Amino acid sequence: MEIKDMISSTTVIRPDGRQSDELRPVRITRAFTDVPEGSVLIECGNTRVMCTATFTQGVPRWRKDSGLGWVTAEYSMLPRATAERTDRESVRGKVGGRTHEISRLIGRCLRGVVDMKALGENQIQLDCDVLQADGGTRTASITGAYVAMVDALRWAQRNRRIRSAKRVIKDSVSAVSVGVIDGRPMLDLPYLEDSRAMTDMNVAMTGSGEFIEIQGTAEHRPFSRDELDVLLDLATKGNRELQAAQRAALEELGAAE
Amino acid sequence: MEIKDMISSTTVIRPDGRQSDELRPVRITRAFTDVPEGSVLIECGNTRVMCTATFTQGVPRWRKDSGLGWVTAEYSMLPRATAERTDRESVRGKVGGRTHEISRLIGRCLRGVVDMKALGENQIQLDCDVLQADGGTRTASITGAYVAMVDALRWAQRNRRIRSAKRVIKDSVSAVSVGVIDGRPMLDLPYLEDSRAMTDMNVAMTGSGEFIEIQGTAEHRPFSRDELDVLLDLATKGNRELQAAQRAALEELGAAE
Amino acid sequence: MEIKDMISSTTVIRPDGRQSDELRPVRITRAFTDVPEGSVLIECGNTRVMCTATFTQGVPRWRKDSGLGWVTAEYSMLPRATAERTDRESVRGKVGGRTHEISRLIGRCLRGVVDMKALGENQIQLDCDVLQADGGTRTASITGAYVAMVDALRWAQRNRRIRSAKRVIKDSVSAVSVGVIDGRPMLDLPYLEDSRAMTDMNVAMTGSGEFIEIQGTAEHRPFSRDELDVLLDLATKGNRELQAAQRAALEELGAAE
Amino acid sequence: MEIKDMISSTTVIRPDGRQSDELRPVRITRAFTDVPEGSVLIECGNTRVMCTATFTQGVPRWRKDSGLGWVTAEYSMLPRATAERTDRESVRGKVGGRTHEISRLIGRCLRGVVDMKALGENQIQLDCDVLQADGGTRTASITGAYVAMVDALRWAQRNRRIRSAKRVIKDSVSAVSVGVIDGRPMLDLPYLEDSRAMTDMNVAMTGSGEFIEIQGTAEHRPFSRDELDVLLDLATKGNRELQAAQRAALEELGAAE
Amino acid sequence: MEIKDMISSTTVIRPDGRQSDELRPVRITRAFTDVPEGSVLIECGNTRVMCTATFTQGVPRWRKDSGLGWVTAEYSMLPRATAERTDRESVRGKVGGRTHEISRLIGRCLRGVVDMKALGENQIQLDCDVLQADGGTRTASITGAYVAMVDALRWAQRNRRIRSAKRVIKDSVSAVSVGVIDGRPMLDLPYLEDSRAMTDMNVAMTGSGEFIEIQGTAEHRPFSRDELDVLLDLATKGNRELQAAQRAALEELGAAE
Amino acid sequence: MEIKDMISSTTVIRPDGRQSDELRPVRITRAFTDVPEGSVLIECGNTRVMCTATFTQGVPRWRKDSGLGWVTAEYSMLPRATAERTDRESVRGKVGGRTHEISRLIGRCLRGVVDMKALGENQIQLDCDVLQADGGTRTASITGAYVAMVDALRWAQRNRRIRSAKRVIKDSVSAVSVGVIDGRPMLDLPYLEDSRAMTDMNVAMTGSGEFIEIQGTAEHRPFSRDELDVLLDLATKGNRELQAAQRAALEELGAAE
Repeated sequence: MEIKDMISSTTVIRPDGRQSDELRPVRITRAFTDVPEGSVLIECGNTRVMCTATFTQGVPRWRKDSGLGWVTAEYSMLPRATAERTDRESVRGKVGGRTHEISRLIGRCLRGVVDMKALGENQIQLDCDVLQADGGTRTASITGAYVAMVDALRWAQRNRRIRSAKRVIKDSVSAVSVGVIDGRPMLDLPYLEDSRAMTDMNVAMTGSGEFIEIQGTAEHRPFSRDELDVLLDLATKGNRELQAAQRAALEELGAAE
Repeated sequence: MEIKDMISSTTVIRPDGRQSDELRPVRITRAFTDVPEGSVLIECGNTRVMCTATFTQGVPRWRKDSGLGWVTAEYSMLPRATAERTDRESVRGKVGGRTHEISRLIGRCLRGVVDMKALGENQIQLDCDVLQADGGTRTASITGAYVAMVDALRWAQRNRRIRSAKRVIKDSVSAVSVGVIDGRPMLDLPYLEDSRAMTDMNVAMTGSGEFIEIQGTAEHRPFSRDELDVLLDLATKGNRELQAAQRAALEELGAAE
Repeated sequence: MEIKDMISSTTVIRPDGRQSDELRPVRITRAFTDVPEGSVLIECGNTRVMCTATFTQGVPRWRKDSGLGWVTAEYSMLPRATAERTDRESVRGKVGGRTHEISRLIGRCLRGVVDMKALGENQIQLDCDVLQADGGTRTASITGAYVAMVDALRWAQRNRRIRSAKRVIKDSVSAVSVGVIDGRPMLDLPYLEDSRAMTDMNVAMTGSGEFIEIQGTAEHRPFSRDELDVLLDLATKGNRELQAAQRAALEELGAAE
Repeated sequence: MEIKDMISSTTVIRPDGRQSDELRPVRITRAFTDVPEGSVLIECGNTRVMCTATFTQGVPRWRKDSGLGWVTAEYSMLPRATAERTDRESVRGKVGGRTHEISRLIGRCLRGVVDMKALGENQIQLDCDVLQADGGTRTASITGAYVAMVDALRWAQRNRRIRSAKRVIKDSVSAVSVGVIDGRPMLDLPYLEDSRAMTDMNVAMTGSGEFIEIQGTAEHRPFSRDELDVLLDLATKGNRELQAAQRAALEELGAAE
Repeated sequence: MEIKDMISSTTVIRPDGRQSDELRPVRITRAFTDVPEGSVLIECGNTRVMCTATFTQGVPRWRKDSGLGWVTAEYSMLPRATAERTDRESVRGKVGGRTHEISRLIGRCLRGVVDMKALGENQIQLDCDVLQADGGTRTASITGAYVAMVDALRWAQRNRRIRSAKRVIKDSVSAVSVGVIDGRPMLDLPYLEDSRAMTDMNVAMTGSGEFIEIQGTAEHRPFSRDELDVLLDLATKGNRELQAAQRAALEELGAAE
Repeated sequence: MEIKDMISSTTVIRPDGRQSDELRPVRITRAFTDVPEGSVLIECGNTRVMCTATFTQGVPRWRKDSGLGWVTAEYSMLPRATAERTDRESVRGKVGGRTHEISRLIGRCLRGVVDMKALGENQIQLDCDVLQADGGTRTASITGAYVAMVDALRWAQRNRRIRSAKRVIKDSVSAVSVGVIDGRPMLDLPYLEDSRAMTDMNVAMTGSGEFIEIQGTAEHRPFSRDELDVLLDLATKGNRELQAAQRAALEELGAAE
């Protein structure tokens, strides 16, 4: 059997009954809290991330007088997002490597769809706090943060801090995980699958179908070019569906613009 | 006019329409997230705190072989719980004084109603994360953490880690803020009132009506013994109502025990 | 027997021979060191705290151009103030929760008697370093810091940094601990009693007899409203005597003003 | 013109005269310092990284009694590896996000070719210190660290800490950067090109031609699936050549085994 | 004029009226606080340092099962020991270079006179906290810490933790500063002279007249071998007098042994 | 036998075959890396230190508008410079006492030969990173940093940041270690000897033969004035030879000026 045929040829039943190319149910709640310029709760299966977007005038010192804006992100897990309690990084006195890595990833993905010139010397800070973790927290953060960022930019337009939210946002962005489990490529891995995956890949894509980030890691078993192709097909399918969910959420509350 | 008459004699209309001795609407949601032994969302007006209780076997090193359990708490604010974004303490690299102070307060209050011998050498860690802050976050944390702790102890009983949750919990505990605003004692201050209060007091009480903590501070104007008496009356009334809400929430999901 | 009768009705002999409503001997030494604007050694029994007050022009950034002054405090224990050596917080790399909590308490109490407008854009920093700890270090710090602050303000007046020390100081402030031991309310607890107290309360009062801070904690046994009343009576008596000692000390060196 | 034809169809002259699919000169010096079990200086053009491998008996606590070994890595830049001096992370008091991210990447890549069972409960620590940075420091670190690790394992075999270095090393691993500059895919970017790249990708591959890590980022312009394919072709070519250099270096000093 | 003649030939009047080879008045108060095994206040002119010695059973992990003891020291300045307030190192979150350097110096000097075998697996921790700083705080710390250490060892002998204090202490140790000011060598520099010194040297000597530490620094003007000889003569004279003061203090309280 | 005769009278054969007054082979490589204003690799036997000098316009805040320049240094060891791997200080989160002490020593020595007025408001930062440690790393750092500093000043002169490198450099400076081993004074101790030395002394001297720093420590056995004299003779001889090596290196590359 060709690797390329893997997805369609068999009826893989996953622990949660999904097909190998099926996303977990996605729910995007806007205005989850009242105060932030953008506030979104994204739920991908049992993974739940609260994403807020803070719009502030001015940019960090190193970017002053450039005429350009800035977008940055911070990711964090609440102590009991996980089955075993994780110590707070504030108490340990430093941000861990994994947190740093994910925060940087989210920031890059969101910056990838923003026109910094149209944003002007304003800053958007995205905070992604994981309330419950069941795999895919970093990709859910990216997908949710995009919606929060759009809301913050619409707020900025209504409050005349920027001319047009649409001009600032060059494209949409979402992300999803894919992986190879027992030799089978799968879409959107929950924790149970993620911990058994030989290969694990996070793929962030724009609404127009191009890649912003690909992070594939195969600590447990290297993967071939053919497997890579299947994984990218799955990721493309998943991201298209996530972007549909983003669009639906953003149309919902209606006429913000 | 006697200070003692202040509450009843006038129809104080507060910004949110409440009487001076009226609590904000309270909502306690159990099982807010799936994984923790106890997980509660408490909402007091616009203040929302997620309280989780983690039950683990064993106690910190300094308490080993004592036959006694331990209860501890950590409090934290999400960056956009507030109108202006607050920097994360993990990023700043240290826990601030206010956070420390509140974490210790919550821990003391909860320990105050726990029979450490009946708990045995087990530990309960309470995590209070403020999703949205509108005054009274520390008192809401205490009130919510109590419910989460009861759930964690019921879990421990079902899983035979302890004999009886009821024997561990000597009494219930709740807390509420009171303060003097423009010379008038008030119950349960939202942020707007809190920032204008001359005197500010947090009062934690047991279900049987005794005090566990009184923290009154009058940086802006000292208060007299008479004012203190009125404030304590208000706090007693508020705590009774909060304890009713706790009981109602704990009966809801039915037969955990 | 009524709780209210407890103090007078019996002849309680405490380990150090004091009556239940009796303070330990207090000694306040001004100009303990030469350089600071105010430098006080306060001894309450075996507890000894060195309190210095530093007067500087200018205020922290967040308070600039407000026309108002600022008062802040830091508390610390020398490693061998205690029976077992305590590790230095500088070496551990962070200030602990207890230290933070006490520093903030001292700051609030002192700010409570200062007219920030009369102080102008000047800052007073109070440093309370415990040379020897035998209970009541935080309340001794408040009582001693007040005297150091007055000396610093007199210095500022003599050096024409402020118009009048008297106008800056709205009232005096002192603090004392009270607690319930074996069911009996007691004034001014040394370490031996403090560690056995079921209820422990620190009360800061102004010279005119009003409260600035009440911090009562009953981790080990809640206390009733009646007990609270007795404790507040004891604290009022103790603070009156401490304020007499403050006045005596401040008159001693004569005509600073 | 098809994107796939881009590489061959034109004679791109890069600032340093290379073809678009040409590596910079590579030099691998073994036994660069005397003491470590493995010590390698790798030079890729002007980028120079010192990679040491430390073999120690025992594994971190969380892995004890598993019968498995562990491989970990730390990456750091000397202050003047860069044109402008970078502050030391030891002085700043914390490891930055970029450093964390790269250290974790190197660790994963090296673990990807190690048979942890054959290693037994031993640990290999890889230290990659950049003496001079001209782009591609993280990929040079991976390529150099592999050689240092082989030397450390040969040392361990000679000293009878492991049975066979060959059984521990399942495959070789190298890494190289690729990117799109002015719309043209390029292999092995020096700093000048790297800073202008719209898309930037690091690809770690095994000697048998499979992927261990793919990290593509397109903060400045998303890339298409076609571009991705060209970049992966370039990376495959580059890694093959780097692996030849690794083999040559490892054969040089002769009969270590 | 020969440099060697400098001291005797002229009547240098220093700001405080001393001769160039004259120590400031020294006062050593034992049992300055009640709790520590050794507690000394040393005053050298206006410099005042509180030195405590803590005797504990057991040694740090790296020294276990060696049969040898350990002596270590920590130095710190209270915030207002100096004319301008110094920020606390606990608040800044790290111990500064100067503090580290001095702590290590004190530790080495005291270890230099201790027979670690006779001490057995016990530890002495010396804490030197500067209450008031007027030059020579590190040398005063050494001189005072020696007395505190002797007291702690006598305590240990009385409490049968060691056989004989005398056998542990191989020799006494004291230290003094010397320097060249306006071309003239001087003994025991107060802050005013210290800040003007071109050459500054701290010399720790044993009771039998040998050197334990010499730290000479000439950031502002190098010094010749001849000048060095004069400085060492002055230091020898000063240390002899300090050792007399140590002996007198240690005989005072009488029959500790 | 007189101590003074010790050096010449016997044929001491050291582990590496040197005479007691013989330096290890010294090699100074300039332009070791390409980017820094000064970049030197100094090898003293097996000790290898990379010294870079960074020239920047402007001085630290506390020195602004003084018209004077500043010279500062940082010392660090790579993890595997030593036989057993040393944890990185960046990972531990703080700079250790030994590192602090040495960094400060190097800074003082280099400042000792710089005319700060001629340097103007410019700063030189010296970074000394130990690639391999075999005793004498701090003295090698000083000797190497001097050469790197000269190169940086020549660069500054060529680039018209300063008028004349020669006017900035008042004198040369080098440093060497001496010690007493088994009762015999020795020059330039490698690790093996250093760890056995009873007395250990680092001596920094100017080209004109005066002392800038003397740091003698005798934790293990005090030393007499006579021994000190012999040690200083040895250090003088060693420094003269090191200064010859510095001159030779600085003349080599020819016409930088």
